[in-house]
Amino acid sequence: MAETIDLLTAARRLTAAEGVLLLTHRRPDGDTVGSAAALCRGLRRLGKAAWVFPNEDLTPRLAFLLEDLLAPPAAQYDLVAAVDLADIPLLTTSAAQFAKKVDLCLDHHPSNTGYAAELLLYPKAAATGEVIYQLLRLLGVSFDLKIWEALYIAVATDTGCFRFSNTTPLSHRIAAEALEAGLDFHPHNRTFFEKKSKTRFLIEKRMLDAMTFSSDGRIAAAWIERDWLKEIGATDDDLDNLSTLTMTIDGVDCGIILTQEKTSSDYKVSVRTHMPADASRVCREFGGGGHPRAAGCTVSGPGKQAMEKLMAAAQGELARC
Amino acid sequence: MAETIDLLTAARRLTAAEGVLLLTHRRPDGDTVGSAAALCRGLRRLGKAAWVFPNEDLTPRLAFLLEDLLAPPAAQYDLVAAVDLADIPLLTTSAAQFAKKVDLCLDHHPSNTGYAAELLLYPKAAATGEVIYQLLRLLGVSFDLKIWEALYIAVATDTGCFRFSNTTPLSHRIAAEALEAGLDFHPHNRTFFEKKSKTRFLIEKRMLDAMTFSSDGRIAAAWIERDWLKEIGATDDDLDNLSTLTMTIDGVDCGIILTQEKTSSDYKVSVRTHMPADASRVCREFGGGGHPRAAGCTVSGPGKQAMEKLMAAAQGELARC
Repeated sequence: MAETIDLLTAARRLTAAEGVLLLTHRRPDGDTVGSAAALCRGLRRLGKAAWVFPNEDLTPRLAFLLEDLLAPPAAQYDLVAAVDLADIPLLTTSAAQFAKKVDLCLDHHPSNTGYAAELLLYPKAAATGEVIYQLLRLLGVSFDLKIWEALYIAVATDTGCFRFSNTTPLSHRIAAEALEAGLDFHPHNRTFFEKKSKTRFLIEKRMLDAMTFSSDGRIAAAWIERDWLKEIGATDDDLDNLSTLTMTIDGVDCGIILTQEKTSSDYKVSVRTHMPADASRVCREFGGGGHPRAAGCTVSGPGKQAMEKLMAAAQGELARC
Repeated sequence: MAETIDLLTAARRLTAAEGVLLLTHRRPDGDTVGSAAALCRGLRRLGKAAWVFPNEDLTPRLAFLLEDLLAPPAAQYDLVAAVDLADIPLLTTSAAQFAKKVDLCLDHHPSNTGYAAELLLYPKAAATGEVIYQLLRLLGVSFDLKIWEALYIAVATDTGCFRFSNTTPLSHRIAAEALEAGLDFHPHNRTFFEKKSKTRFLIEKRMLDAMTFSSDGRIAAAWIERDWLKEIGATDDDLDNLSTLTMTIDGVDCGIILTQEKTSSDYKVSVRTHMPADASRVCREFGGGGHPRAAGCTVSGPGKQAMEKLMAAAQGELARC
C-alpha cells in the first residue's frame, strides 16, 4: 500500500526530481489530460525535464493539450507520477509496463487503491486539477495561459461545467483566475458541453424513441444495437455518458442504458441513480460494480430481455430504499 | 433619458431611502428575481423597509425566492428601483403603473433604454446579480445564506451554469463565496439546468423527429403544432429555449423553431445563429427582430410552408456572411 503524503511532501518529491514522466488513465478524460498537461508545463517552467507518457486512447478533442508534451522513446526521468489514476488496470496497454514503478500518484478518487509508492489524495476535490493547482502554487510556478487552459478543462469537465454536486469553491476560484488571466474559455465550453456530432444527435434521437419507462415512471431504460451503431458510423466518443441523459427526466430515479459490445452479442450496461438508490447494488447482481450514483456491468443479449432483467433489478433496488 | 450613475451614488440613494420597492421584469427569469431577492434581503438587513412588487408571471420554481418579500398593498416606500429591467414594456401589466415613476434602475443589459431617473448599468456583467453583489458589498451588508442563494441563482441562470461566453471572473467568485458560505447549490442546478418534465421530454423527442436540415447541414429547423401541444398538456415553460437545442448540433449555424400560437394558425418563430450569421436580419424579413444571435418573428401557417420560408431566408443570410 502507498504511503499517504501531504501537499508539501509531494512538492518536495517533484522538486528533488530532475526528469518526471506523467501517466494518464485509460479512456482519458479532461481531468487526467488537463491535470497532466498543467503539471508537466508547470514543472518545465521550473526548469525540469517533464513529459506525459503517450496515451493510445487519447481523443482528438483533448490531444491539443499534450501537443508538445508527449514523451519521446528516449525521454529521461527519475520519477514516475500517475495523475488522476485510481488503479493499475486503468493504465493503458502501453503504460502497463509501469504497473509496479509508479513513484507518486496525485488523485482525487476515494477509490484509489494505493498502488503507487506515495499517494497524494484529496478525496473531496472535484477534480485532480484542483490538486495540481495547489501543488503548482506551492511550487511557486508562475501560471501561463496554457496552464490555465489545462486546469480549466480539468476542473470544468469533471464538474460538468460547475453543475455537478462535487463542485467546490476551489473549482470556481480556479475558473475565476483562469478567466482573469484572459483564458478564452467559451470555445472549450462549446466543445465539451454543447457541441453534439450529427452521429450523437442520431443516437440520442434513437435512444429517446426506444426509451421504456417503468409504470411508476421512476426507471427509464433503453438498449442500442451494434449493427445500427456501425451503420451510422458511431465511435465510442459518441456513446459517452448516454445514461446521464435519462436522469434529466423529471421523476426518473434510475436510468439504464445498454449498448451492444463491438464483437459479441453481450451488452455493456450503464446505470445511473439519484439518491438514495444505489446503482452499484443493481450492477453487482450481474457481476459488475461501481459507485452509488454510477455503475456498470455486462450482460448477455438479446437486448430487450437484458433490459427487462436490469429493470427488474432496479425495481428491487428502488423498493429497498 | 436616465442619468447614468456609479456604484457609490447608487449605494447613497439606497442608503438615503427608508422604504424601497423593487420591480422585476415580465416573464421573470432567475436573474431578475434573484437580484431583487438579494437586494431586498440586503436592504432589510440594513434596517430598511424593502419589498418586491408582486409579479403575476412568476413561475413556481422561482417563487420561493420571494416568499416573504412580496409587497402588501399597504407597503410604504420612497424609492422605486427596477432590477434587470431594460425597458418600460418589460414591466408586467400590474406594474405598468410605475412606468414613469422608476427612480433607480440596476441593470446589465446594454440595450437599457434609460427610462429610469437614474441608471446604474454594468453592460459587461454577466448578470444583474453581479451588480447587486457589488452594491451589497459597498453597503456593508453581511450576507446570509438566503442572499447567497438568490445571487447564485441570478448568476448561474444568466450564464447557463457558467457555460455561456458572458461568464465573468466575478460570476465564478460569487459562486465560490456562495459555496464557501455553505449554499446547497446542487438542488438549484438540478432544477434550472438538468430536470426536464415528461412533457418537455416528449416535445424534444418530437422536435428531434421533425427536424429538417438544409442540404449543407448548416440550418436545422422544426415546427410544432398547437393541437399536439394541447394533447400532451404543454405549458409555455415547457417550450422555453427549444431553439437553443438545435445549436448544439455540430455544423449547424442557424436553428429555427416554429411553435403554433395558442389562439391562431400563426407560428411564433425563434431563430438562433452562430457568429457571424445574424438572426435579427432573418427575422426582420418577416417583421420581427432581436439580437444578432437570437431573434424572433411571427409568420402565418401552415407550418411546413412557414418553415420553408424561414429556411430560405436563413440560407440567404448564411450566403451573405
